[in-house]
Amino acid sequence: MSKVNLLERRNFIKGMGAAAGAAGMAMAAPAMAVSQSANGVKWDKEVEIAIIGSGFAGLAAGIESMRLGAKDVHIFEKMSYFGGNSAINGGLFAAPGTPMQKKEGVNDSVERMVQDQLKAGRGIADEALLRHVAEHAVEALQMTFDAGSEYHPYLQQLGGHSVARTYQTTVSCGAGITQPLLKECRKLGVQTHNRAKFEGFLVNDEGKVEGFKIRQGYYFGEEDTGKLMHIKAKRGVLMATGGFAQNVNLRMAQDPTLTAEVGCTNAPGATGEGMYEMFRLGAIPVHLAHIQSGPWASPDEGGFGYVSNYSIYNFPHSMAVNCLTGERFMNEIADRKTRADAELACRDKQGNPLPPILITSYKDSKKHPNTKKVIKYNVGWKFDSVEELAKHFNVPLKPLKAQIKEYNQYVKSGNDAQFGKNMTKAKGKYIEAPFTVVRLWPKVHYCQGGVQVNTKAEVKDSFTGKPIAGLYAAGEVCGGVHGVSRLGSCSIPECMVMGMTAARTMMKA
Amino acid sequence: MSKVNLLERRNFIKGMGAAAGAAGMAMAAPAMAVSQSANGVKWDKEVEIAIIGSGFAGLAAGIESMRLGAKDVHIFEKMSYFGGNSAINGGLFAAPGTPMQKKEGVNDSVERMVQDQLKAGRGIADEALLRHVAEHAVEALQMTFDAGSEYHPYLQQLGGHSVARTYQTTVSCGAGITQPLLKECRKLGVQTHNRAKFEGFLVNDEGKVEGFKIRQGYYFGEEDTGKLMHIKAKRGVLMATGGFAQNVNLRMAQDPTLTAEVGCTNAPGATGEGMYEMFRLGAIPVHLAHIQSGPWASPDEGGFGYVSNYSIYNFPHSMAVNCLTGERFMNEIADRKTRADAELACRDKQGNPLPPILITSYKDSKKHPNTKKVIKYNVGWKFDSVEELAKHFNVPLKPLKAQIKEYNQYVKSGNDAQFGKNMTKAKGKYIEAPFTVVRLWPKVHYCQGGVQVNTKAEVKDSFTGKPIAGLYAAGEVCGGVHGVSRLGSCSIPECMVMGMTAARTMMKA
Repeated sequence: MSKVNLLERRNFIKGMGAAAGAAGMAMAAPAMAVSQSANGVKWDKEVEIAIIGSGFAGLAAGIESMRLGAKDVHIFEKMSYFGGNSAINGGLFAAPGTPMQKKEGVNDSVERMVQDQLKAGRGIADEALLRHVAEHAVEALQMTFDAGSEYHPYLQQLGGHSVARTYQTTVSCGAGITQPLLKECRKLGVQTHNRAKFEGFLVNDEGKVEGFKIRQGYYFGEEDTGKLMHIKAKRGVLMATGGFAQNVNLRMAQDPTLTAEVGCTNAPGATGEGMYEMFRLGAIPVHLAHIQSGPWASPDEGGFGYVSNYSIYNFPHSMAVNCLTGERFMNEIADRKTRADAELACRDKQGNPLPPILITSYKDSKKHPNTKKVIKYNVGWKFDSVEELAKHFNVPLKPLKAQIKEYNQYVKSGNDAQFGKNMTKAKGKYIEAPFTVVRLWPKVHYCQGGVQVNTKAEVKDSFTGKPIAGLYAAGEVCGGVHGVSRLGSCSIPECMVMGMTAARTMMKA
Repeated sequence: MSKVNLLERRNFIKGMGAAAGAAGMAMAAPAMAVSQSANGVKWDKEVEIAIIGSGFAGLAAGIESMRLGAKDVHIFEKMSYFGGNSAINGGLFAAPGTPMQKKEGVNDSVERMVQDQLKAGRGIADEALLRHVAEHAVEALQMTFDAGSEYHPYLQQLGGHSVARTYQTTVSCGAGITQPLLKECRKLGVQTHNRAKFEGFLVNDEGKVEGFKIRQGYYFGEEDTGKLMHIKAKRGVLMATGGFAQNVNLRMAQDPTLTAEVGCTNAPGATGEGMYEMFRLGAIPVHLAHIQSGPWASPDEGGFGYVSNYSIYNFPHSMAVNCLTGERFMNEIADRKTRADAELACRDKQGNPLPPILITSYKDSKKHPNTKKVIKYNVGWKFDSVEELAKHFNVPLKPLKAQIKEYNQYVKSGNDAQFGKNMTKAKGKYIEAPFTVVRLWPKVHYCQGGVQVNTKAEVKDSFTGKPIAGLYAAGEVCGGVHGVSRLGSCSIPECMVMGMTAARTMMKA
């Protein structure tokens, strides 16, 4: 993947040099840096607001800016399809003080959600940004209701959350949000352009981002395709370009173990060039070293697959077991980093990866729509007895039986003496045959790092500490919000709230 | 500090804009980015090799390039004095297979040193760079011998090292190395310029760094001082500009707890603008989130002070005690991060910081030259009895007495049942009255993050993955080498080896 990208980029750079030459502009580091002076640029198009990227952040910004009276808003997406990486995640949305929490009698608050996230952030999360997002999360959720998103009629309590506060789309997928938002954008008059690849900023003498270059009619992976256009953005450019989990070179720069062989849940477009272009403009790189792996993924299928949503739903009333020992090895609803680290430590006697298994009673697992699919596609298995299960995965039977007995005591007492798991959602759900079982192994899922922004979605300059004029960022392209470990279902509210925030800031600018 | 810097930078940017205007150049983001096109630049000076920064890396590069036949090598230092932050550190130099290890019968190897560092790096260190440095560390040490550096006649075993492999200058300070290296540089003909502040690169149409701007005659903290000069560097520009521990805004971007109130061991010039300028050129930011605090520092004095070297020397045969409990709370020679985290967790009942104490037998501590000084300057205290000691620090006497008794059992048995400390260097050194005691509290000490380099000291471009032509980097300005936690005494060999490496690469270029 990354080798292809590098080659593409070289072609792209070549193309850009030619265009710049034609415009007769001098550039700093022209063959490398992609941003150029806006002086003397012949604009192909002038828009009011330009949004680069069509995931949660970009779409929410589109809707909010139109609602605030914008007339001419454009979304540019490099892929042929809209929705970006947002369209293929789990569609999980955490918010405090929601209608469903009231219905289920869950006592939650902005402060509680912030505190849960600060804990997972291990001291280096951005408290102001977390609070800003939590305060506006219900508004963002409402935006999805209004657009027609549909959710399961129950809340989930995901790892690291102290209460149940997570909605999930009925399709168990982010597309259940991006599709309605895209429709709503178009209904409101937002103009959407696919195959439109961002190719660098155009900056005036005061350092303000006046516009940008885009390759219109671009085909992903063929860098010379499409036509280079110079687009002016009157109110500003919002970078909602996502993370870099699919850029193997850049993720290996932070963690040499994240080679091309390591699975990744992200869409192929998550290659990070928007983020790196902002660093070239002076944005502050924050927490790039913190790349999150999803502990709910399966080694038996590609990408996010069917197992991820299956196990996210089932973790609270399931038992994760090390196949070498037959024993539990983690709190099944600890935060993502804690669980991913624990899974990666599951090894055979030679030190090779030995994916642990997640054991659930079939009667409890079958409430989730993916249960049929994981069994159908052979990435999950149903067993009628513990003997059959142990044989299949070569787990020592005696300790496994003892572990099941012990775990069921915790279900009964509501007190997990082994790992301190919150057993509320496990109440009455004993581990009993028949069982459904999947294997677990972390996949690269989310980049906690990115550019530093403030609560107005402005991008700070590393030398002045002030916002870079004309530039805004929202979503995974931003860094530092969550610290060391982001909690599950906290990305969608962040993306949408910060997208809405960027729209509000631009409409005041 | 940081507010002052921001203001300075604005003035500086203003000054630069004027200069660029005079030269009639168009720039990308001219008011923000500092690098400019080299097209049409009237060069004030042309040199063979330019080295920015006069710490370990810059000085080693100066010497090595002259030895390899360079004729015209220049070192530019923004401060009025030479040596940078290197001049005020502990002067601790780790290397495997040294003359003193042979004398003391220490069994060490390149591989062993690499493995110790990989462990502290917690999986994300750059093994190739660590091995490159370890392989050439003895050469670098020899360069300091040749230049006239003098070392204590014993080795130390620092935290996280599995054997004693650390030399320390007789002055217990980095100046014991920078001063001789500076003298050697000048003897060989390297031209050294102080009050010469780097102000951005000058880059040609192919993206090659042709030269740079410097403010000659600059006074630190007065940004309009001095004269702007354009300097061409035929073989290349080596950035040896150090870390950003003194730039409060930039360190808080990574860790919001590292406010201006948190102590810092670094020289005031460690503000990181060289590093951030390279990011603007396209260098890959690596591990900026990993900022190391020194667990050997004292809250009772500013900066590195007297206590740091005192405690580094004494940790192996001392006992660190939590003043609230009277008990030990860490392995006194664990790696820096492990110890700093443990110290930061020492709190009073209200959760306020309660610095722990390091208790050493006076008879053992007095071998270190700083012992007299810490007592003289009231940052360390001598007590004739445990009762006196406990009263002074308000430590509960009974558990403290029990802890001393228990610890002395470990000294006897050679086996620390509490924290698994390697007791080799504690042999025969029982904790007995009279005692010397200092207080401990971590101070910001070292930035593990920086630009990504390869084993040729070339700086990788984030888009192409290839080296940025004409640009080299060495020392703390580079990132990712050590991973999560750098071991003590491993920075000097890294700085010097990578400086020498850069010289070798440039002389071949």
